[in-house]
Parts: sequence; structure tokens; C-alpha cells
Amino acid sequence: MTDLAAAVRAGDRRALARAITIVESTRADHRDEAAALIEAVLPHTGNARRIGVSGVPGSGKSTLIEALGLHAVGAEHRVAVLAVDPSSTRSGGSILGDKTRMADLGRHPAAFIRPSPSSGTLGGVARRTREAMLLCEAAGFDLVIIETVGVGQSEVAVADLVDLFLLIASPAGGDELQGIKRGIMELADVIVVNKADGDLEAAAGRAASELRHAVHLLRPKRPGAEVCVLTASALTGAGVPELWSAIEAAHRALGASLDELRAQQSVAWMWSEVTDTLLDRLRADPQVRDELRDLERRVAEGTLPPATAAHRVLDTFLDGS
Amino acid sequence: MTDLAAAVRAGDRRALARAITIVESTRADHRDEAAALIEAVLPHTGNARRIGVSGVPGSGKSTLIEALGLHAVGAEHRVAVLAVDPSSTRSGGSILGDKTRMADLGRHPAAFIRPSPSSGTLGGVARRTREAMLLCEAAGFDLVIIETVGVGQSEVAVADLVDLFLLIASPAGGDELQGIKRGIMELADVIVVNKADGDLEAAAGRAASELRHAVHLLRPKRPGAEVCVLTASALTGAGVPELWSAIEAAHRALGASLDELRAQQSVAWMWSEVTDTLLDRLRADPQVRDELRDLERRVAEGTLPPATAAHRVLDTFLDGS
Repeated sequence: MTDLAAAVRAGDRRALARAITIVESTRADHRDEAAALIEAVLPHTGNARRIGVSGVPGSGKSTLIEALGLHAVGAEHRVAVLAVDPSSTRSGGSILGDKTRMADLGRHPAAFIRPSPSSGTLGGVARRTREAMLLCEAAGFDLVIIETVGVGQSEVAVADLVDLFLLIASPAGGDELQGIKRGIMELADVIVVNKADGDLEAAAGRAASELRHAVHLLRPKRPGAEVCVLTASALTGAGVPELWSAIEAAHRALGASLDELRAQQSVAWMWSEVTDTLLDRLRADPQVRDELRDLERRVAEGTLPPATAAHRVLDTFLDGS
Repeated sequence: MTDLAAAVRAGDRRALARAITIVESTRADHRDEAAALIEAVLPHTGNARRIGVSGVPGSGKSTLIEALGLHAVGAEHRVAVLAVDPSSTRSGGSILGDKTRMADLGRHPAAFIRPSPSSGTLGGVARRTREAMLLCEAAGFDLVIIETVGVGQSEVAVADLVDLFLLIASPAGGDELQGIKRGIMELADVIVVNKADGDLEAAAGRAASELRHAVHLLRPKRPGAEVCVLTASALTGAGVPELWSAIEAAHRALGASLDELRAQQSVAWMWSEVTDTLLDRLRADPQVRDELRDLERRVAEGTLPPATAAHRVLDTFLDGS
């Protein structure tokens, strides 16, 4: 395992891919390997900008992420793109399953693209994405983009992993028409209206004005923080350098609060890991499993109080362990 | 304990108050008593309409709840008002700490008002409120109003306890100006603009129109469900009978889905009880407590991976139990 950690640190891409496969595995022996691996690389992590990205359906999210990634590699950055897609846990597919969606970026020697882990709960997927992010940082990637597709919960989960959140909007009018939930708007540090080209350029400018107005009505994410709203075109490349500058500026503006933010994220992570693992072990307990079906049925029927059922489950679990 | 349950069922108000005190207690021996009490009354619960109520600051929430409660007791209903106020867990106060805020309703023989449990986490407060609700139902109250004051989370917690959610707005313009979070709007089944009297009557009508427009842009809470928006005045009583009719109609419209909703709420409740109790026991474990301070510090510093810290906590907890 020290060999694999050393190979990851040396920037060996195949080692990185293998290491991510280990942290994504749900096999119990792999979990131990993963923990040792993360412990070995941890001192060499934390040096990347961590950016979450979400997009309105139809906003051309992956083409804009690719354009942004290509701009960043052009500026001597090393870019990793990871995905969190809870919907893929149901369909079995994955938003980045075929790397063809970001073919140019995927071929670049300074970029690394990894599809979403294909099974598990959102909490599990987010945990594995966090560990994959740490491995990418240890391998020398200094920009980690975590792409999310989702209906709100996955954005919140990703916001807990990253330093900044970028929201990609479309030239359709207003936040109402774009179907952007206010909770998602409140997560954003930077908003970009994509497709600002050709016929849609004027509409993109109007959408940006409306979004600027909308974010002014929201509570700022941090005291004094300003949300930057701009337009760009993944097709022509217009606005992409400005988008990169805006992300850099927003990251610089975090200043000393970045360390604090990451410390809070780590402690929160520890607690969600405690909770998830406890519940995983509880559900996996054979005696608990036997009992649960009957208890859930009786609780649903209203013949057993939820608290009584919960205490029976806990007694079975804790006495048996 | 059977005596107390029997006295609650007979509608003895002092017995009901004592029973609620027992379910609100965090003492371990009281938890066992509370579980036995709830188990004893459970077959006699479920016959009330369960209504969550939240209000914009300045909307005159408690006076309107009182007016609605007095209307309902006038229509031969028996009304219990419970409160969930997570802010009182910090300040030590409680929104209904002095019953004087609903003095007329509080004096009525067919009404029962109970202030918020004064300590604990939101999850704990909500759990105790749920048990208090069941006790009120066993005591023959057929309308249980759960009042919440909060910034979003408490409304979501209360929505998981009740059949319907009523939002009280003020005559100020629009949802933006009222500061209503979209997440709260999405919980509402009925919205009422209070203070539709005197100078403010026209403004209340305009606010209702704007809110009607705003809710049309939201996804319906249930397929085909329509949010009813009306105006009322706690001062003059205008619109209060219509508000009560709207609540009755919305409850009738739930039809067969009410049983399903309550079954889901009960199973979800069992799982949150399992999670909360597991974490309570973990935090109370003396060995875990000794270890936690050091682990949290090292996780925050970034010298120990969160997952590793979590597994150490779990090993200490599960081996020691």
C-alpha cells in the first residue's frame, strides 16, 4: 500500500486510477486498504482549489467545464474532474461513464477525468468522491472540479466538499424560468450564463442581469461575500478566461477563512462517517435484519410506536455486537 | 403507568400535562416510562387532524392561531396547540412559555396549549412534540396544531409530523419581500395573509395575489395538489371561518393518501430515532468522550483523515458496549 501511495504521489495516472477504485469499493477489506491509503497521502493534500459545479439542464455544463479545464491546463494548472451523480445509483449509468463527453480535456496530459462512483447512497458517493479528491491532490492536481447532477441534495453534499461553488445557467430568463431552486442559488459563489454566442448572446446578457438582481435578494453565503455573475460561451471560448479569473479571485477572497472552512468540513465529515458507518453496520447485522421487516411493518400499520421499535433494533444491535 | 394512560384517555387535563412532562424528560428512567405510556395510548391515536403552522415574523401568527382555535372549538372540535421552537433551546425561553399569548383559547375547556419543550436538539424537540401530539390525540383532541418558529429546519421537521402545513403571511408584498424561503413555500398546503383589516385590507389582497402567482411556479407538493391562498383578520375575525373550511377541504382532499403519508412518517420516525439514539449513546460513552476531543482536533488540523477518526470512535464504542 505504501508503494501505491508513493506511485500516486509521483503522479502515476494508472496508480491514481487504481487508488480511486480502492476508495470507491464497498468491500470490507478494501475499506481498510482505502483508510491506510488516505492516511498515507493526507499530508500531501489540501493544495488544490476545490470547485463544485452544478448546472441547469440544457446549460451545456460539461462543454463549459471542458472549456474551463482546457483554459486552466493552458495556464499550467493540472486539472482533475470528478463527478457526483446520485441518479446514476438508480439507473446504473453515470454522467461521465463514457469520457467522450470531455474528449479533448480527457486526452490532455495535465488533466484527469473520473466518472461517478456507480453505486451507493448519496452519502456514500460523496464520501468516496471526497477521498478521490484527496488522492488527486496528492497526485499533484491543483484544480479539482467536482461536477454534480441533481435535484438539490447532491449540490448540498458537494458544497460540503469544496471551497467554492460554480453554478452554470442557461440564457433562459430569470431564476424562476430556469427552475433554479433558491437553495442552490444560495450555495453559489460564481454564476455563469453559458451559450453567450450567436443568437443567444443578448438573451444570455439579460439572463445574467436577472440573476444578478436575484442574488442581491439572497442572504450572502459569507458576510460581505459578493456573488459574481458573468456570461461565457463554451462554443466560442468567449468569457472563459474571465470565468477562470473570477474563480481565482473568489478563491483568493476566502483568505484565512479557507483553513477554517476546511477544518469544519473535516470534522463534519468525521461525524457523517460515524453516522453512516454505524447505520451500515446496524443494517448489515443478521439479527437486526431478521427483526426489521416485522418491526417496519408494525410501525407502518401504527400498531408499534416508532420509538419502541427503534429501541428494540438498538438493543438487538448493541447486545449482539 | 396504566393508570396515567387511562387518565389521559379519560381526558383528564392534569394527567395529560403530566404525561407530556414525562415524554419531554431526558432522564433515562423517564424514557422507559414514556415508551410504555406511548405504547399504551397508541391504539387510541390517529383520529386528529394534524396541522403544522409557521408564520412570517410580524404576521401575527399566535393571534391568528388563537382565532382559528376559537373558531374550531365553537364548531365542537377539541383543539390542542403544541409548539416547536428550536431557538428556545438556546435562549432558555419559549414562544409559548407564558400562555398569556393565547389567553382566551387557553381558558377554553375544549382547548389545551402546551409550550415548547425547553431543551435539546431540534431532532429531540421534534420527537417529544410527536409524542405529545399522540398523547393529545389519546385524550380526545381532534385538532392538533403544531406551531413552529424557525428559519427553515424546524418547519421541515414539523412537516414530517403533520398532515397539512399552514403558512401565515403578512400584507407585505410578494414572497421576496416577506423573506419567505422557497423551501417553506413548498411545504405549504394552505397560505393565509393575516391582518386583512382596516388600512391593510387592500395590501393583504395584493399580497395574496402575489403569493398565488408564486405558488403556481412551484412544483406541487403532491401530484394535482392545489395550494389555497386566502386572507383573514385575527382582529375582526373576517376570513377565519373560510380558513377553517379551507383546512378541512385540504384535509379531505388527502383521502386515502393520508394513511400512506402517516405510515411513511412513522417508519421515517423509527429510523431517525434509531440514528439519534445511537449517536446519543455514542457521545455518552465515557471512553468515546475521552478520545473524541483529541480526534476532533487532529481531524480539524488535517493530520488525521476523518474516516480513520470515525472508525476509531466506532471501534471504541462497539467494542466497549
